[in-house]
Formats: sequence, C-alpha cells, structure tokens
Amino acid sequence: MSKVFVLAPDSFKESMTAKEACEAMEKGIRRVFKEAKIISIPMADGGEGTVDALVDATKGQRLFVDVAGPIPTEKVRAYYGLLGDKKTAVIEMAKANGLELLSPNRRNPLVTSTYGTGELIQAALDQQVDKIIIGIGGSATNDGGAGMASALGVRFFDQTGQELPLGGGYLKQLAHIDVTQLDPRLKEVEIIVACDVNNPLIGEKGASHVFGPQKGGSAEMISVLEDSLSHYGTLIEKELGVSVINEAGAGAAGGLGAGLLAFTSAKLKSGIDIVTEQVQLAKYISEADYVLTGEGGMDFQTKFGKTPYGVAKIAQQYQKPVFACAGYIGQDVDVLYEEGITAIFGILSAAENLEAALLKGSSNLERTCENIARMLQVN
Amino acid sequence: MSKVFVLAPDSFKESMTAKEACEAMEKGIRRVFKEAKIISIPMADGGEGTVDALVDATKGQRLFVDVAGPIPTEKVRAYYGLLGDKKTAVIEMAKANGLELLSPNRRNPLVTSTYGTGELIQAALDQQVDKIIIGIGGSATNDGGAGMASALGVRFFDQTGQELPLGGGYLKQLAHIDVTQLDPRLKEVEIIVACDVNNPLIGEKGASHVFGPQKGGSAEMISVLEDSLSHYGTLIEKELGVSVINEAGAGAAGGLGAGLLAFTSAKLKSGIDIVTEQVQLAKYISEADYVLTGEGGMDFQTKFGKTPYGVAKIAQQYQKPVFACAGYIGQDVDVLYEEGITAIFGILSAAENLEAALLKGSSNLERTCENIARMLQVN
Repeated sequence: MSKVFVLAPDSFKESMTAKEACEAMEKGIRRVFKEAKIISIPMADGGEGTVDALVDATKGQRLFVDVAGPIPTEKVRAYYGLLGDKKTAVIEMAKANGLELLSPNRRNPLVTSTYGTGELIQAALDQQVDKIIIGIGGSATNDGGAGMASALGVRFFDQTGQELPLGGGYLKQLAHIDVTQLDPRLKEVEIIVACDVNNPLIGEKGASHVFGPQKGGSAEMISVLEDSLSHYGTLIEKELGVSVINEAGAGAAGGLGAGLLAFTSAKLKSGIDIVTEQVQLAKYISEADYVLTGEGGMDFQTKFGKTPYGVAKIAQQYQKPVFACAGYIGQDVDVLYEEGITAIFGILSAAENLEAALLKGSSNLERTCENIARMLQVN
Repeated sequence: MSKVFVLAPDSFKESMTAKEACEAMEKGIRRVFKEAKIISIPMADGGEGTVDALVDATKGQRLFVDVAGPIPTEKVRAYYGLLGDKKTAVIEMAKANGLELLSPNRRNPLVTSTYGTGELIQAALDQQVDKIIIGIGGSATNDGGAGMASALGVRFFDQTGQELPLGGGYLKQLAHIDVTQLDPRLKEVEIIVACDVNNPLIGEKGASHVFGPQKGGSAEMISVLEDSLSHYGTLIEKELGVSVINEAGAGAAGGLGAGLLAFTSAKLKSGIDIVTEQVQLAKYISEADYVLTGEGGMDFQTKFGKTPYGVAKIAQQYQKPVFACAGYIGQDVDVLYEEGITAIFGILSAAENLEAALLKGSSNLERTCENIARMLQVN
C-alpha cells in the first residue's frame, strides 16, 4: 500500500516560506515514493509567518490594507489572512506595528502605537468573520494596546477631558476610559491571541522592563513606560472591572495582551496549539505513516513552543515517526528526541556564509528529504 | 540479534583523519544501538591519507625517516607505514616529494626530484617487507622517476660519462642508463602503485603538458620537460627493453609511473581497489547489516575512484545499504545512488566559514550518524 506522508514545516526564515518548504520536501520524497500520498500543511507557531502559513494551509487569501504603522502618523501597507473557510481571519500585529518596520534609530516605545493593529482587527470584522486569530510577536510598541483599542472605538481622556495622543508614553496622564463607542461586533466574534510568554503587565517581569529595551527604550524611557502601564492597568481594573495587571501574558507585545483582555473577549493561547488546531494537524497525522517537519534553525529552544516541537508532540500521541530538517542545528538539539522527534538532519551542502546558504535552501531541503525517504526504504 | 555496522570513511580533509571519522561515527551509532557490533575500517583511496588509513586500519606503525625533499638538496622528515602484518609497507610519494612541501614561489619542475621517494622505498626494503604499496598523488616532480631510481642504485650518465644532476630538466642530456647497481631486493618484493590516471609519459596528454603547469612549470619549462621525458622514455625502451612511453599511467606523478614500471616490478592499480583489498573490506561488508562511509566532500567526481564509491561498489555486490556523510555535497551527487550509495547526508550544523566548520567536524559527524542510526529504528 502506498505510504502517507504529512509535511508540516515552519518557514525557513529568509529562505523559504512554509509553503515553499512543503514543496521542496514533496519534490524530494516524490523521487523515492512515486505513489505516496503527500499531505502538505504549511505551519507556523503564532509568530512571524503565521498569516502566510494559515492562508497557504487552508487555501485562503491575503487581504491588504493601509493602516497606521508603528509610528502612527506614518501609514504602512499591511495584510491579514482570510482563511479558506471565509469565517476566520488571521492577523500578525507585526505586519502593522512590528519592530522590523522601523530602522533602529527610529525605535521609540514612548510614541509607537498599536493603532494599526486595531485597524487590522476592524478590517477583519468587516469581513464578517466568526473568529480572529491574532499573532502578537515582534511588536515595536509599549502602549498596553491602547492604540489598538482607540482604533476600535475606545477613547482615552486626560484630566482636562482631552483625548490622549497615541503612544505608551502618554498613558501616565490617563484619567478616564470611555468604552461606549467600542465596536459592538467585537462581542460577536471569537478572538484568540497567540501568546507564548506569561509576563504580567508591569513589574520586573512586565512588558516595559523585559521587552522595552529591545524596542529602543532607554532606562529613563522604561521608567516612564512602567509608570504609564501601571497607571493604565490600574484604571482598567477600576473602571472596567477586568483584571489585567497580573494576568499571565498581559505583558506580551508591550501590553497588547492586556489591552486585548481588557477590551475584547480575547483568550490567550499557545501559538503552536492555535495553528495545529486550525489546520487539523492531529487528524492528518493520525492517518500518516511518516511526518516531516523543520524550521530554519533548531536547538533546545525549539522545545519552547516552536513548530517542530508542536508537530512532534502530536505525532508522539499517535506514535508516528517525525523527521526534522533544519539549516542551523544548535545547542542541545538532542533534547528533542524525547519529545517525539525521531531524527534531525542538517540540510546545508557547503561551508559558506548565510546569504549563500539561504539561496540554496529549497534545493538543499529537497535533497535532504529525498535521502530521508531513501532511508525509509532500508529494510 | 544485535546489528553489525561497518564504518569505512575516508578522512575529512583538514578536519578528521579517517580513524577520527570512524570514532565519531561509532560514538553516534553507539548512542542508538548500544549492543551493536561496530567494525571501524579507516579508509583511503590511494591519495593523501593512505598511509594513515592503512596504518590505523591494520594497527600498524608509522616509521619516520629523513629523505631528500622535492628540492633534493633540502631534507624533509617523512614517514611511511609498516602495516600490522609487518610484511607490507605503504608509502606516499608526496610525504617526501609533494607539491605542498614547497611554497608556490619555489615550485620548479626542472629541478625537483623523486630521489626522496626512492629513499622511502629503500627504507621499506630495509624492513624486509614482501609488499610495498606506493601512493603517487600530489607530486612536485617531473623527473620520470629518475630521482627515485637513482636512490635505488640506478645511474644516469651524459655523453661525457658524467652522472646527471637530479631534476627532470637535465634528462635531455641523458646518454646512458646503468642499472647494474640497482638494489637487488626490488626483485623479491611486490610493488603496487596506486594510480588512478591513465596518462601516457609524453604528448598532449603526457605528464609535462597535463600536470607540469600546476607544479610551477612555465610554457618554456614544459617544452624542456616534454623533450626531456621523451628522450628519457626512448632511452629506457631502447636500453632496458621496457615499454613506458605509451603505457597508461606512465605519466602519473611527473612520470614516476614510468620510472616505477622501468626499474621495478611495479603494477599500477586503482588506489581504492588496493586499499579495499588490503583491509579486506569485502569480507567485513559481507557480514555487515549496514555500511557507513563518507569523505570531506562528495559530488559526481566521487564516482571516479573515491573512497565512498569504492565502498559502495563492494556493498552493492553484497546488497548492503550504504549511508554516506560529507561536509560538502556538490554537483550531481545523486549519480551515486545508482552506484550503491543508499543515502547521503550533509553534516554541517550552521552556515559558517570553512575554518569554523572544520573545527566542528567530529561533533557534526557524530550527530549525523546518531540520526542515521535513529532512522534505522523506524519500522
């Protein structure tokens, strides 16, 4: 009987999208198992590439929209995904308000805003979806999600009754939050936030102290931002009666986690679990003989919710072998053997610099998967 | 029943000797197959590393001797191998007269000599061996093996009865060859020359035209050398009655092939065949479940007599699977699948420069072989 392969790689960053990785894997396997049933499921873990993977996995579409960028006076063209079921939207906040959209010298968490992320949510609501999946990694912001809320109708006032400017640095002046004009469609939609950190909103492990510095925050700025989010969180709890200050994940994405909890019905959940459920990975794996996964780089950190780990855990439940491919194989990668990864192979073909290696990603992955398939014919 | 593995890698040049490669492979396999019988056979193909591999494979010893270097007035410390049977010596001409012993600006095929190679042969004869295996790759010389013959007692005279100086450039003046003082022990010993080229002594495909330029020969020098070898070959045929000019392989190593044919009972043979026979590779492979091989680099040229090819051809006869590892995987490596190589895996763990990759060779090979072994446990 012909074999069934499930291909569930993440993207190989800067080299291949998850879909392209699937294509390379399939080519390699097909050379050996000509009659095999090969099921390609481009994967992601809730981080960068999640929209692309879920759109590709479900044959959905990318919808482009101009929204406020990290510096909200500057527009960026972002896209979100409408999945094949037409009932689910997928957003990556970083496509609107990501750190990589700003050159290092322009990164300033006092003024960056999640307003554009709110606009993406609004665009998704306009598509009359039932569910919105939001990936919040890679943010340039530290505004507690206030910008996002503003775009959805929430108004933030100072003591003089003036609306606050956008940007985390102004939240210290917050005196009142008005949610009366919050988009009512938010009550009708399921919002799932891909969140793999459990940082609280404030404190030593809070958004400002832990993530502020990498967003361009000086020690002085961090101090302002910490005070701002503390004040903001306290007012949310007081005026809206929603706990956000010490909620696990509230500090994710500069407090966007808190904002989503405060102003929407959002549930925070592990990114890889969201994706595997959305693509019904368990169902496909249960019917497979072999599972292939991979990512640009793998090491012991893969265990902390990366795609190959998520794929392996499901495969382990069904006792299916999992073969992983990676360009970079780092420290203590062998911890993954216990997590359901059967074998891991590097795909590189030569000692050369990263630029050169990235260009060969597709042919290298194809060759490696062909050889994995050839191994499967032994005995 | 516990599995039997035969490990037969070549060296990974500048990273691991063949023996070290065996050790890394064994460590990786042992993590998975704790009870396996693992037979390590460090391999070579008659080129660089052949002495080391055969000494290591047979638990022989390295014997050091000071001999004339490529420029014969300068001594070099070289070593040859006395194999575990104490009856077989292995010489690499390049250890005495190799191109790599000379900095590029000192390479001059008019004056370089194989005299030191003759001294190595003499040292081996002193060990009362029955057989001498000679690897002739990597030579700096173009003297038709006249230097080697001189060291063994042959005398080369000009028309005035003076002995010629050493060096291929003087052979034009050769008038008479006296073999009466040739070491008589040469008649009692089997000499096998590892030779994988079939170039004749002279002509467009001869030693001087094909290999002279890479040894530092200018167009003018090549012309002198061609005339010299032509005259030398003609005189050998006339005075000794031995055909050397058009013999396949006579042009190897600057005509050392011709010299060995003329003055000894040498037989030229494919290097990999010599090594596989010497280590009885076929016997071990016939009793193996799995064969592992590898080399620093593999590509379509591996098919032209490199170790992984030689190992695979034998394994193919016994229908045993062969898994190959390499640091560099180059063009059209997939031609090797038809030659008995089951699967080929790259061992690199990161996109980085050669120096860095070479340092990690051992751990990378170990990890890759562990994963190959893990694949063998599937089903």
